[in-house]
Amino acid sequence: MPELRKDPVVGRWVIISTGRSRRPTNFAPATKGKSDGFCPFCPGNEDKTPPAVYTVKPPAGAGAAPAWNVRVVPNKFPALQIEGGLERRGEGLYDRMNGVGAHEVVIESPDHGMDLADLPVEHIHEVMLAYRERMIDLHKDKRLRYVLIFKNHGERAGATLEHTHSQLIATPIIPRFLQEELEGARRYYELKERCVFCDIVHQETADNDGRRVVAKNDRFVALEPFAPRFPFETWILPRRHDASYQDTADTGEYLDLAALLKDTLQRLNRALDRPPFNFVLHTAPVSDGDLEYYHWHLEIMPNLTRMAGFEMGSGFHINPTPPEDAAQYLREIAAEAANG
Amino acid sequence: MPELRKDPVVGRWVIISTGRSRRPTNFAPATKGKSDGFCPFCPGNEDKTPPAVYTVKPPAGAGAAPAWNVRVVPNKFPALQIEGGLERRGEGLYDRMNGVGAHEVVIESPDHGMDLADLPVEHIHEVMLAYRERMIDLHKDKRLRYVLIFKNHGERAGATLEHTHSQLIATPIIPRFLQEELEGARRYYELKERCVFCDIVHQETADNDGRRVVAKNDRFVALEPFAPRFPFETWILPRRHDASYQDTADTGEYLDLAALLKDTLQRLNRALDRPPFNFVLHTAPVSDGDLEYYHWHLEIMPNLTRMAGFEMGSGFHINPTPPEDAAQYLREIAAEAANG
Repeated sequence: MPELRKDPVVGRWVIISTGRSRRPTNFAPATKGKSDGFCPFCPGNEDKTPPAVYTVKPPAGAGAAPAWNVRVVPNKFPALQIEGGLERRGEGLYDRMNGVGAHEVVIESPDHGMDLADLPVEHIHEVMLAYRERMIDLHKDKRLRYVLIFKNHGERAGATLEHTHSQLIATPIIPRFLQEELEGARRYYELKERCVFCDIVHQETADNDGRRVVAKNDRFVALEPFAPRFPFETWILPRRHDASYQDTADTGEYLDLAALLKDTLQRLNRALDRPPFNFVLHTAPVSDGDLEYYHWHLEIMPNLTRMAGFEMGSGFHINPTPPEDAAQYLREIAAEAANG
Repeated sequence: MPELRKDPVVGRWVIISTGRSRRPTNFAPATKGKSDGFCPFCPGNEDKTPPAVYTVKPPAGAGAAPAWNVRVVPNKFPALQIEGGLERRGEGLYDRMNGVGAHEVVIESPDHGMDLADLPVEHIHEVMLAYRERMIDLHKDKRLRYVLIFKNHGERAGATLEHTHSQLIATPIIPRFLQEELEGARRYYELKERCVFCDIVHQETADNDGRRVVAKNDRFVALEPFAPRFPFETWILPRRHDASYQDTADTGEYLDLAALLKDTLQRLNRALDRPPFNFVLHTAPVSDGDLEYYHWHLEIMPNLTRMAGFEMGSGFHINPTPPEDAAQYLREIAAEAANG
């Protein structure tokens, strides 16, 4: 059984994933999942993953198309385990609980050679809806506090299989940075009676500014944040206030999101030669759906620099690329591609 | 001039290092500094770095030895700039100040082929004293709040030059994770009237335990923390309460530190085939020297897994190696080497 352990000084919870325990000799770089080998996410290998919890089928009459467009399955090597109670307990100074939670894989396409950015907008829309459906389902589990959706793209960004996929980890505690973001946003609201993310959207999209805006459409804006941790860090925010990803009144919103996500990832791909990247979906915790002070968004972090260990140790980020430069570059490269 | 910028939601300060600004095409892996090339840290190339701010000379009569054992120089490409005022200012929602601070390099040995772990204990002792001297000197600068000493070892851990060195960044703000650690330790003290790190040392070195202890000597203990973020994460703590690294009454303490640091790094090298790693020295902020609730220590983080981006985005760590297993392995491997 995996375990959740809490650092007694800073209160940071960590998953100790005993089921995946690795001896020193097991840390050689993973080589599985290359295109010349076997891929458990490809059509025909459905029996090599646990049974799907959600499937999007292609439209009827699609002929020789594969049996699914998007497929969500439990992770075969989960960091957390869905069965059991939390059994919170102490040990002297220390606190721990059972590593209860969900760990799922969203297989974004049946096509092994496609990246998320290359899929048609309508297909990315199906992926966005899959995130929503899994959130709604997992929010029913009273043991869970947060459903975290993220994507590791490229080996350097932590992907161990190259077939395009995202992941979902649902936890009985709120991940640290999300908790800090929720607290920061609440403090701002207490001070100003306004959502800080709404204020960011207004300031960044004001007529006399736009230096950090990468692209926008009716419902979303993609921008380089004022204080980015990483070069070309890019956030996509809904322009209208909404605390929770899954609670949108109008599901057409996800189509606009899919369009801007594709546009943004393609700009990053062109600017940075298809970089490894991570994205993390920031949304309200389970059962805190309708917060006035919080505003869901997607944070995309290209993996270009190597300061990981030190920065993970201090929280101190040195970013060699001003966001205004990055935004200008990303705006221009798209124009070049459109003209070319 | 580099700039410090604050995220308006979570309050995270970031260094935007405009002097090192990088365009998208500049993110190819660095290849400078390999042993077949020119090395600015080698003896004879002293004029290729800014003038030294601290030097340890070899004992008199050391014959053909090089002119120095340890040499501290300002970083030629500093992330922060030592001249100027902070000039704090706002821009709508946002806060920024000038990137004032120090960025120095501690060249740990004149020998290009030596790693820190391979140096004699007496030489590592000189490195530990160099840290102390630079801290004492920089603590006189009223603009600075924190002196952060760290080491990136190996390209994967962020080192761009292979000649063994550590770094020092002195900042006008306290790095985020250090601030959180200080606050956590203060809360614990308010509750218990005890230092949380002293409690950790006592619990871990109790006669009926020791499962997470790697090694110890009279004044220090090396242990795997209860809730480690990374496999084989190892902390070295003084067994006696001391808030500040540089304020030790007895300078003999640094010799014991050097001995246990060498022992610990060698165990990690043997267990993990000379892994890339980072270490970060955690100590009290400038002018907060004598805190009852804080306890300086060194956190060593081997760089073995690739979850960087996602974990940097969420603060959520999945560690596949329980610290009890790692500690046992590190204890045993040393015994094997001693017997062999």
